[in-house]
Amino acid sequence: MIELANLTAMEVDALTDSDGGLNLTDGHARLLLSPQQRQIVARLPEMFAEASRRPFPEIETEAHTAFLHAVGQRTAPIGTGRILSCYSSTLATDIVARALPAGATIAVLHPTFDNIADLFRTRGLHLVPLPEEALLARDWPAPPVRAIVVTHPNNPTGLVTPEEHLRSLAEHAARHGQIVIIDASFRGQVRDAQYDTYAVLDAAGAEWISIEDTGKLWPTHELKIGMLAYSERNTLPIERAFSESLLSASPVVLLLAKALAEDWISGGYERARAVVTRNRTTVEEAVTEAGLCLADPASQISVARVELPEGGPDSSELYEDLVRRGIHVLPCAPFHWADPRGGLRFIRLSLARPHATVEKAARTLAASYADLTARAIAPVA
Amino acid sequence: MIELANLTAMEVDALTDSDGGLNLTDGHARLLLSPQQRQIVARLPEMFAEASRRPFPEIETEAHTAFLHAVGQRTAPIGTGRILSCYSSTLATDIVARALPAGATIAVLHPTFDNIADLFRTRGLHLVPLPEEALLARDWPAPPVRAIVVTHPNNPTGLVTPEEHLRSLAEHAARHGQIVIIDASFRGQVRDAQYDTYAVLDAAGAEWISIEDTGKLWPTHELKIGMLAYSERNTLPIERAFSESLLSASPVVLLLAKALAEDWISGGYERARAVVTRNRTTVEEAVTEAGLCLADPASQISVARVELPEGGPDSSELYEDLVRRGIHVLPCAPFHWADPRGGLRFIRLSLARPHATVEKAARTLAASYADLTARAIAPVA
Repeated sequence: MIELANLTAMEVDALTDSDGGLNLTDGHARLLLSPQQRQIVARLPEMFAEASRRPFPEIETEAHTAFLHAVGQRTAPIGTGRILSCYSSTLATDIVARALPAGATIAVLHPTFDNIADLFRTRGLHLVPLPEEALLARDWPAPPVRAIVVTHPNNPTGLVTPEEHLRSLAEHAARHGQIVIIDASFRGQVRDAQYDTYAVLDAAGAEWISIEDTGKLWPTHELKIGMLAYSERNTLPIERAFSESLLSASPVVLLLAKALAEDWISGGYERARAVVTRNRTTVEEAVTEAGLCLADPASQISVARVELPEGGPDSSELYEDLVRRGIHVLPCAPFHWADPRGGLRFIRLSLARPHATVEKAARTLAASYADLTARAIAPVA
Repeated sequence: MIELANLTAMEVDALTDSDGGLNLTDGHARLLLSPQQRQIVARLPEMFAEASRRPFPEIETEAHTAFLHAVGQRTAPIGTGRILSCYSSTLATDIVARALPAGATIAVLHPTFDNIADLFRTRGLHLVPLPEEALLARDWPAPPVRAIVVTHPNNPTGLVTPEEHLRSLAEHAARHGQIVIIDASFRGQVRDAQYDTYAVLDAAGAEWISIEDTGKLWPTHELKIGMLAYSERNTLPIERAFSESLLSASPVVLLLAKALAEDWISGGYERARAVVTRNRTTVEEAVTEAGLCLADPASQISVARVELPEGGPDSSELYEDLVRRGIHVLPCAPFHWADPRGGLRFIRLSLARPHATVEKAARTLAASYADLTARAIAPVA
């Protein structure tokens, strides 16, 4: 059975579950604040006053600097006007989708979060999948593909595009007049993804667009910034599309992101990593006992996919049984936006949750899997 | 000369003006906080903690109740799941535009903020203007017009759709299977617009969509909520379009809006009104001295249009001269999205600004107009 709902709709269901079910759907951090983060949040009223006192462009540039430097992006075009602050990375993606010429063919990494593909499709673009295997083989799509969209690191697999591969892609794109689009929303979580992608893209002379996101790093209740950066050579009406979507992000949120980015390079990264690593281990232990395994044991992002063997219950059945047990996770068919069946053997859990939540969810998943398997084998009573 | 830039692009220019020019472009409140509002903002860290502790749907329902009751909308479908919280009213409008069937014809009030028309057009809808005169004459468009979009109160004119007129529209729409779409973003500012439009629409049996906005009321630096409400009878895939755009608004911002709405009914409305009324009088006095007048003297919203007599400088020339003098306002041609020439004789100033800012802008506008007029008459040196 292939789900018709998109992933965000399932995340909304989990968020609005009035029965108090556990929500391990979205990749947002839903954690208690660290003591350092709590001190920053306590300064929100000061940030509000600062936003009233100081010019917006100054605040914006400082926030871009703090955040992008904290995630290794030293040659991002800070202060040039080519980084637009949006309410979210989704909105940034939609602005890109709108700016691309309607009817154009674009290649999108596969699998990846379905929302990325949906936003491009809804704006009238024609999509072709770029399988992760093709990326790893540096097998890049030729024109008429006009733009190539890579999620780095990828969600849900955690695949980091290696620097050499990005260079190869950028050189290919420059040669063929294609645009490289990087969705780096999960980059902040993974040191390996923090080599300076702007430098690589610029050195190759490629036309590029990068989307950055503060929303996957900190438990800030949707107070977040999506950044839309683009290369000096730019053929798309990005500013027009931006001005159709918003006037500006909040300077208060920019100041919050700036402070959290400063904490991120002063131990915050390591503290957050420790939570996710511990939770990944817990999931691995629980599912291993049930005869299952992690699909991406090397992944470093805040979600984990569990692989389900052929022949047993698939992720749709497991998802529905888990909802009945009060646990919301994500079945992976929708991530395989070009071939939903390819995702039926995977189910995704969020790891940026309190340890007890993840532990309970992982144990319930293991129990549900065992029950569904036993039920399938047992004769009907 | 007809401007090609959209209004938001001009607002962005004003916001990012590095020469410290005065920004009287957008309709957002850019004011110092009142003492009462300052006390609310001081509680942001508490609201953050509350958002961590309590379920999202509870917070959302409370915020909807406080806000919608504060603006008179007692029969809005609070708690039914038919009010979606968005980052902004613009995003809510875009979600509606996406949910409407591509290629459909919709009637949009004229003039109105160009962004509303742009968002619908960009989603592949065919637009026809509904002139304010037609609204006042209850001359409603027949099918194939599928939906009728009314800004209430209208921006920039301040026109409030009278209750009888809305009833007539709703009955017409119900008869013809059309959808009534109300953009009530400025409603909070005007008591006359706060009759219960949900009751009127429901009583007529119309299919309807309403957009509400906290963003025009309070100086909250873009910490705002756009609400998208829809009727029980609904034929559009609104929830799907919503889930393509966002997972959820911020519960912290919902709690902030809730507290500010509570202040709004405890004197906040009157305090804000006094600022806008004083500023409107100041503008009127300054432009009257220059032989100009307000286009909408009865308007109660936080912007004012100044009318420029035929034969003299038009609003494009005046706009450009004012930018040179460090004053950002909005020329009105883009509001006349179906006929830009119709807006050339109007220029719009924001009134939700500190008094000194409005006074300086109004005086500069009067001086600029006098200079441009004199220059046009004087022989070339």
